[in-house]
Amino acid sequence: MNSTLAIGFLHPGAMGSELGACCVADRRLWVDAGRSAETADRAATAGLESVGSLAELLSAVEVVVSICPPAAAVDVARDVAAIGFDGIYVDANAISPERTRSIGVLFERFVDGSVVGPPPTAPGLTRLYLSGPVELTSTVASCWDGSNLDVRAIGTRPGEASALKMAYAGWTKGSAALLLAVAALAESEGVMDSLRAEWDLSQPALGARLERTATGVAPKAWRFAGEMEEIAATLGAVALPEGFHLGAAELYERLAAFKNTSPSEDEVFARLRDRLKDTE
Amino acid sequence: MNSTLAIGFLHPGAMGSELGACCVADRRLWVDAGRSAETADRAATAGLESVGSLAELLSAVEVVVSICPPAAAVDVARDVAAIGFDGIYVDANAISPERTRSIGVLFERFVDGSVVGPPPTAPGLTRLYLSGPVELTSTVASCWDGSNLDVRAIGTRPGEASALKMAYAGWTKGSAALLLAVAALAESEGVMDSLRAEWDLSQPALGARLERTATGVAPKAWRFAGEMEEIAATLGAVALPEGFHLGAAELYERLAAFKNTSPSEDEVFARLRDRLKDTE
Repeated sequence: MNSTLAIGFLHPGAMGSELGACCVADRRLWVDAGRSAETADRAATAGLESVGSLAELLSAVEVVVSICPPAAAVDVARDVAAIGFDGIYVDANAISPERTRSIGVLFERFVDGSVVGPPPTAPGLTRLYLSGPVELTSTVASCWDGSNLDVRAIGTRPGEASALKMAYAGWTKGSAALLLAVAALAESEGVMDSLRAEWDLSQPALGARLERTATGVAPKAWRFAGEMEEIAATLGAVALPEGFHLGAAELYERLAAFKNTSPSEDEVFARLRDRLKDTE
Repeated sequence: MNSTLAIGFLHPGAMGSELGACCVADRRLWVDAGRSAETADRAATAGLESVGSLAELLSAVEVVVSICPPAAAVDVARDVAAIGFDGIYVDANAISPERTRSIGVLFERFVDGSVVGPPPTAPGLTRLYLSGPVELTSTVASCWDGSNLDVRAIGTRPGEASALKMAYAGWTKGSAALLLAVAALAESEGVMDSLRAEWDLSQPALGARLERTATGVAPKAWRFAGEMEEIAATLGAVALPEGFHLGAAELYERLAAFKNTSPSEDEVFARLRDRLKDTE
């Protein structure tokens, strides 16, 4: 089932290292120069082979997958294009279709990708959506044949996979931010107990969802703000309102201090309330 | 169980006429001058007694309930205050705590109110939340003793009932708008089928919710925009993001043309897509 290709990951974090771990390509490389010890540990656990420079990686692989924070996607692509790469470049980041296409023009062989779901540590959890020319998407898909990652080509135009991710995360992460915002409002106005009582009557799932959201989202919020800005831009490009996700970006930025910690629900709201005090 | 009070409703629409219909006050009045035939029919069905002028109503009642579109709440209150009223004035509108308090200062005896749920055509559907001095809220509550309407005093400060409504509707109507926005995005980008397929895997309730939302919200959207602006102002007043609900207001304004019609899901999205064409 293994693919005889070599593939490179730029730059594997929590998601990228798991994409690498379940990839069936013959060689799976990453560039360790300038990365943290934590990242190196994760890449090693995933079985990725480290190389010392981007040029070395590019000369060894047929496929590059860019999987990084949204704000870094363009810089990563430019670094690769500056060195020159005639393999398949896959941008798998949570960026707007427009930004995706602006990256696509840097490469002769380009595939748009987007990941929906958590890191693929088990089958059925995670999809990698692709859009681009069929001969390219089928090569990329072959790198995960029979693995935990469900790869789905949904179209031939770069931008489609990104648009799907923007719409999907526009709801999931956008509604999570909205729920935190209305709860922070109720806390600020001293009506949270009444709101919970009303939810128990008419929105029975929402109290539990709030607790899951506050504790689940806070450690990851630091990397959500950039994605929310990409979603806002995606909506704006087709004359739909940008406000939802600009609001969400603002809210997630406030929670960035919880990066990789495990705050309680009360601590999340205390942070939002501290912020209120700061601005008064 | 009947209350011996007389109560006036300004100005009963779909919600106000049902609040009137289940009210147990001895007399239930409204002002028919300048109102539509449809409104008059609804008030008559509710058993409300029509009077010819606001002054006549104010001289006859001990309690006035303002229940009107959010944008009209201040004008209604000013009209009453200009004539002079020494009974209990209840603002039951979906307006910000700040606007509520600005209305409250016009009256010696003021109660903040807010309605959560559909018109109270059966028991258990609808709450009227109140905040204000206990002797006032208990008098107001007595007007619905044993009725379909569940009246709950949640505090003594005007603004609390309004804040609860803003937080509650901030989620319900805010998330409905967000869902329509991401679906309109997916339609515009040609990835709606892929989005529905992903929802079927990872967000199984969302496809059905979208259909309910599009068809259920469109006929009422014309009166949601003002409420969304009130919610945005409420969040802004405590330094939380206003963008979610400014976006929602924009979206609902686009659907205002469906007032009291029954569009299909496709027609709702066609309307949003026509709008896209308009702005290109």
